[in-house]
Formats: sequence, C-alpha cells, structure tokens
Amino acid sequence: MLQQRSSLLASSLASTFRRSFLVQTSSSAQRCRRAYSIHADASVGTKILDIDPSKLSIEKTTTPKTLLPPEELVFGRNFTDHMLSMEWTASEGWLPARITPYQNLSLDPATCVFHYAFEAFEGMKAYRDKNGQIRLFRPDKNMERFNKSAARIALPTFDSDALIDLIGKFVKLDQRFIPEARGYSLYLRPTIIGTQRTLGVGPPASALLYVIASPVGPYYPTGFKAVSLEATDYAVRAWPGGVGDKKLGANYAPCIVPQIQAASRGFHQNLWLFGEEEYVTEVGTMNLFAAIKNKETGQKELLTAPLDGTILEGVTRDSVLGLARERLEPEGWKVNERKFTMQEVSDASDEGRLLEIFGSGTAAVVSPVRKISWKGRLVECGLEDNQEAGPIAQQMKDWMEEIQYGDEGSEDHHWSHKIL
Amino acid sequence: MLQQRSSLLASSLASTFRRSFLVQTSSSAQRCRRAYSIHADASVGTKILDIDPSKLSIEKTTTPKTLLPPEELVFGRNFTDHMLSMEWTASEGWLPARITPYQNLSLDPATCVFHYAFEAFEGMKAYRDKNGQIRLFRPDKNMERFNKSAARIALPTFDSDALIDLIGKFVKLDQRFIPEARGYSLYLRPTIIGTQRTLGVGPPASALLYVIASPVGPYYPTGFKAVSLEATDYAVRAWPGGVGDKKLGANYAPCIVPQIQAASRGFHQNLWLFGEEEYVTEVGTMNLFAAIKNKETGQKELLTAPLDGTILEGVTRDSVLGLARERLEPEGWKVNERKFTMQEVSDASDEGRLLEIFGSGTAAVVSPVRKISWKGRLVECGLEDNQEAGPIAQQMKDWMEEIQYGDEGSEDHHWSHKIL
Repeated sequence: MLQQRSSLLASSLASTFRRSFLVQTSSSAQRCRRAYSIHADASVGTKILDIDPSKLSIEKTTTPKTLLPPEELVFGRNFTDHMLSMEWTASEGWLPARITPYQNLSLDPATCVFHYAFEAFEGMKAYRDKNGQIRLFRPDKNMERFNKSAARIALPTFDSDALIDLIGKFVKLDQRFIPEARGYSLYLRPTIIGTQRTLGVGPPASALLYVIASPVGPYYPTGFKAVSLEATDYAVRAWPGGVGDKKLGANYAPCIVPQIQAASRGFHQNLWLFGEEEYVTEVGTMNLFAAIKNKETGQKELLTAPLDGTILEGVTRDSVLGLARERLEPEGWKVNERKFTMQEVSDASDEGRLLEIFGSGTAAVVSPVRKISWKGRLVECGLEDNQEAGPIAQQMKDWMEEIQYGDEGSEDHHWSHKIL
Repeated sequence: MLQQRSSLLASSLASTFRRSFLVQTSSSAQRCRRAYSIHADASVGTKILDIDPSKLSIEKTTTPKTLLPPEELVFGRNFTDHMLSMEWTASEGWLPARITPYQNLSLDPATCVFHYAFEAFEGMKAYRDKNGQIRLFRPDKNMERFNKSAARIALPTFDSDALIDLIGKFVKLDQRFIPEARGYSLYLRPTIIGTQRTLGVGPPASALLYVIASPVGPYYPTGFKAVSLEATDYAVRAWPGGVGDKKLGANYAPCIVPQIQAASRGFHQNLWLFGEEEYVTEVGTMNLFAAIKNKETGQKELLTAPLDGTILEGVTRDSVLGLARERLEPEGWKVNERKFTMQEVSDASDEGRLLEIFGSGTAAVVSPVRKISWKGRLVECGLEDNQEAGPIAQQMKDWMEEIQYGDEGSEDHHWSHKIL
C-alpha cells in the first residue's frame, strides 16, 4: 500500500493529479518522519476528506465597507467585506469551508509559510455582464494550475469544481463590490499556505487555503500605453528542472531587484531571457507574444515561448493562443509555440518584419511593447510613434473582453463561467 | 540624486551592502510607482533609521513555560518564552526593537509574504560553556549572509553588530532554556518578512524582522549515524543567475518533493546535482564535502563545491574549510573548493580512493554519508559496515564543538562570540 502511494507521488511531478495527493502527503509524512523530522499528525488509514461545498458556513460582516469610487480603485489594495477560507490537515483532509468577515490571519512565528515559502496562488477575475450576471473567465484553468502549484511544494490538492463552486458563493455574497462599468472587475486571489508550526524542513502537515477579492479598474484607463522593456542578462528567473512554470510565491520575490534595476534606467518592466542563446521567455509577470513576418515565406507568425517548464502557464497566454488558432489562422497566420531568441526579434526589427510585441496576463489582458533595451541598443517593436498598440494586441483585448463580459454573441462562450 | 541612488542599487546585486539600501528602497519605490503599482509610503528625504539597540523595550512574559526534559526536545518544535522583533518602513527605517512574550503574528491576508515569498532567514545556535558563559558561533557570518539574502529580494538591510547585540540580549533573557549538557544548544531563527498589505508585485514598503529560539538536543543523540543519499536527476535546486546562494524561503519549498521521493525509496536525503556534467552541489539542506585520494599523486584532498552562486554559503562549510586549511594542510592534505562530478566520486569509490563524504550544516555540524544512489547503482562512500563516520567528519565535529562550547584551549577562539 505504501509502495503504491509512493509511486503515485512519483508520477505526480510529471502530471496533473488531484485528490490522491492528500493520501500521499499523509503517508509520505509517516514514512519520512525519521529522515526529515516532520512530526506530522498524519495517520494512515484516517478518512481523508476533499472539499465539500455543502458544509460551507457563512458569517456575514456587521460592518460593511463603503464602496470606493471606481476611479480610486488600485490593484490589490482594497478588499471586499468577506473572505473564503478552509483549513487542511494531513490527518483529516479539508475541513468545512467558511466565509467570514475579511480579517487578519493569526499565525505562530514558526509557521512554515514564513520560513520555507510554502505558498502558491492564483489570479483570476469576476466580471459583471450587461444583464448583471456575474461571470468567471476559465476558472477551470486556474484551478488546474493551482493544484499543480500546490502539489509541487507538497501542499494539498483539492477538487477543482468544489472550489469553483465555493468561489462562486463568495463572489455572489460580495457582488456589490464589482463595478458595473466596462474594464472593471473583481480580482480574485486564491492562496494556499503551509501552516505547520515547526522549523523542521518537510511537507507541511497542515495548510490554509483562502480567497480574497479586490475590486479593480481597467489596467489602461485612458487606452493602451505601450511599455518599454529591459532585457535582463545578469539574473535568471527559471530553469529546466526548476519551478518557474508554477505559480509559487518563490518565483516572485527574486524578480523584484531586476525590476527595480530596469525601472532605474527608465524601463517599465524587465524581459527575462534564458541561456546563452538568449531565448525570450517572459516579461515581468506576463507571458510574451511576438508577431513577426517569416523571413523566407513572408507569412505572419504569432510566436510565444513553449511550455518547457521555464515559463508560467498563463491562462491569458492559452486564451490568446486559442483565439489566434481559431480566428487568425484562417486569415493566413501561423501560430507557433516555439523557442525564439532576442537576436531573432532584433533581426526582424531591423528588417521591418517585426509587426508587434505584447505581454499577456490577467491584470492587463494584453500589454503592448514599444521597445526593448538589449545589449546597449533599443530594439523597436513595430509601433509607430503615435501608436500605443498593434492590431493583434487590440484585437485580442477586444475578443477576450467580449467573452469575459458576455457581450452579444459571446453570452454562452464556453470560457465564460456564469455564477448561478 | 536619484541617479546616484540608482547606481548604488545597481552595485548592490554584486556586493554586500548595508544601510544604504534603506535609502535606495525608498527612492526606488518612488521612482517605480507608475511601473509597478508599488504604493509605498516611501518619502525621499525622511531620515532613515538603522537598528538602534539602545531603544530596545522589553515586556516579560507573565506565564513562563515549563522546561521540557532535554531528551524530549525536537528541532524547531518548542520555543522559549520570548521573541525579539522590529518593524521597518520605507519612510522611517527600523523602528525600536521589542522583546515580547512569544506570540502569534497577526497579518492581513493580502500581506506580501504570503503571496510573493518576501522572506529570508538564518539558522544559528547559542551554546552554554562549562562556566555557564553563553556563546554564539560566528554570528557575524550569519548576519553578513542575512543582509545579502534580504537585499536580494528587496527587503531592508541593517547593521550586523546592532542585531548581534539585540540577539545577545534576547538570548540572555531566555538563557534558562539552554540545556547544560554537551550537544545541546539554543537554535536561533532570525527571520525577515515583507509585510506590505497589497497585491501589487513590487518592493515591500514595510517589513518585520524577528528572532525566535528553540532549545535543541544533539543531532545524533547516540553517536553518528551515517545517512544514505539519492542523487536527484529530475529536478534542479539552483541555477547560475538565480538565488540558490541566498537563504531565502524560496529555495526550500521546491525541495520537499524530491526529498519525499528519495525517502520513498529508502534514502535519508537527496543529493542535488547540476548540469549534464552532474556536478555535486549540495545534499538536502547541507553543503557536501568529499575526501578523496588524488588519482595521480595519491595526495588526500578535501573537496567541496565552490561558491559559484548555485550553493548556499554555509557558515559550517566555511568553518570546515578554515579548520581544514589550518589543521589538515600541515598534515599533507590539499583543501580544494572546486567543481567535481558524481562520476569522479563514483570512480574514486570504485578505485578505493574515496575516503569519506559528509554533509555540513548548523543542525548536525557534520553528517557522514554511507552511500549514494546514482544511475541505478549504489556508490559506497568509504565507510566500513560497522563504521558510522570517517575520521575527518569525526575530527571536524570535535574541533567545531571545542570552539562552540569554549573548551579548554578554545576559550578565546575568535569564532566564539561571548554574550556579555
């Protein structure tokens, strides 16, 4: 039995898995006790529970917040009245979820999240459509990634549909915080942290999953503003065999100093290259797309780095690719997930073949790029001086928002998840 | 002025620095506001304070804990009566330090430590010598690394001597928790976390530094027990240009699953290799040493991986190297910080030239290795079946403990810092 569980765990590194990890963690904790000083409460044979939305309890706030005027909203600074949270222990599994007033977490200073970065998160949004219906955008993709991230750092996994159900109830309760206007939404931050209160380095025997929500305005309130990037050649964000493809806290703090450095030289974000070949991977906290005319054939190609383990598996990235395959390929475009180098981008720019470059992410949807500082020169990225976005970036933003806001003709798009 | 600060910041990546970063962070925060949605309270021109030990306030517990019997002590599970903590803000610098009863931290769920792994820590010990004198072991080395770790993730730095002074006062207050017996000590865990309460990804405008203390017993209560390692070939701990040489939380959570996997196959720890060459880097959470007879010259060599940015700059590693250079080289040994491969280790084992292998770290001091699983075979590491440690591991442990516990002849060793 233990053998079987261990091989399940082994396969978990390579693929998505869900409930099984609950059992693995508890049995592994038992088995590792001697080697790693885990001191888990894990007990093999105890019934391990997955999330059960029917057990949700709700404690409403008695001091509802005053809504901010939409124009004063700042990303991730103000939160709604409530939060959703649920505890997990290795011996019991997921305990009943609770919606409570938004409140501080009280944690022992030895809690493992403070020392060993046992933390993973997601970023997703709830939108209000023209009929007042609230919609999530591809929450299944977020939950799939959330599970993968948690598993990679020995935190528990869960049933995705159950968590989407609970998030829906939470959003519905706090729906007055979702502004009505186009471009506004409720940013949702599912977070999971290890809560074991010992300093031994091992799999946490307890965890807390919580979701908080912050109303946000449009990333570009007055229309697109193209950004400038600095290619970072002295620091590396991710590498093969590492965890750069997971949405772990561990991938973020180390990126700040390169961002500060790029900013100190007047650039909005840094661009992460990889290897001697200087492959283009990601920009700041977004994936990156380049629209280039093929040198030989003249065909228009939409390029982005492949999911080789070194870039984040962006939901917006996946959506841009899906829309491009569905709607640009019939127009003659080639959509290509492949490695491409900064030299290729630079050559295309020099030869007038670089059509446009844009980042993709939940916050901005798409973020057009004007120029990239690389090896002491500035690579122009296809925009005219008076132009703030290329046609593909603009098109992608429009297509995506039509689905996110359930516009006419997109009311029933399968990427839009209505909260009932 | 801003230009000057930016270049200070640029140079900070490459070298140690201290107070200057306080100013840099605040000015950078100002400059980055638009690019990164930092929303810091930073105000250029405000006087930034470093740690001032004279401002320490002490609130003693009214409910002192009962001491555990020494044999029941488990690493990092039980803590002393008090904790040392101090807050930092980008606008004010370090606020007065406080010693308070050990207590939970109360933090907003949006606090950046939970999302982006703004956290770094140290591990060090306080020892009680035969005269009751309390001693720290090379605290200056820990503080130097702590500053480097904090700076790498845009957390504030501080005056090392001031923090050592405060740690001394804290340890003295809780000295009844340091057991008298040899092998026992008080494990100290200085920790720094980002405390900004917003989800924007940027340098934290506030932080909390705290120190907690856990009485611990000897790592090997009944004498050395040699461990078995599994060489990990499917996951990579660190990368050139990454942060693997800093003591960041970010380096720990991603290491657990490979540890669990090694344990599931019966090994105590995993061994981290690097690159196609399979360079030997670290073991679990320790540095690694190999004692090998040179194939050509027959000279005994003590090898360990160099500080190339991919291994932790262990204080125990540095101490083993220092003692080896001082005391083994006169006996004909060659002490060598260089890259070496698993193939070299395996060849030396096959040819009877592998004398011994041991890990080094604060918890165990040294940890002898019996065998390493690599490419489907077991590499024997020089120990006889009835032998739990090689002579160099044993010698190093003895030398180190003589200094740590201020034994006769080592009372005034410059690595031993007496708390007055």
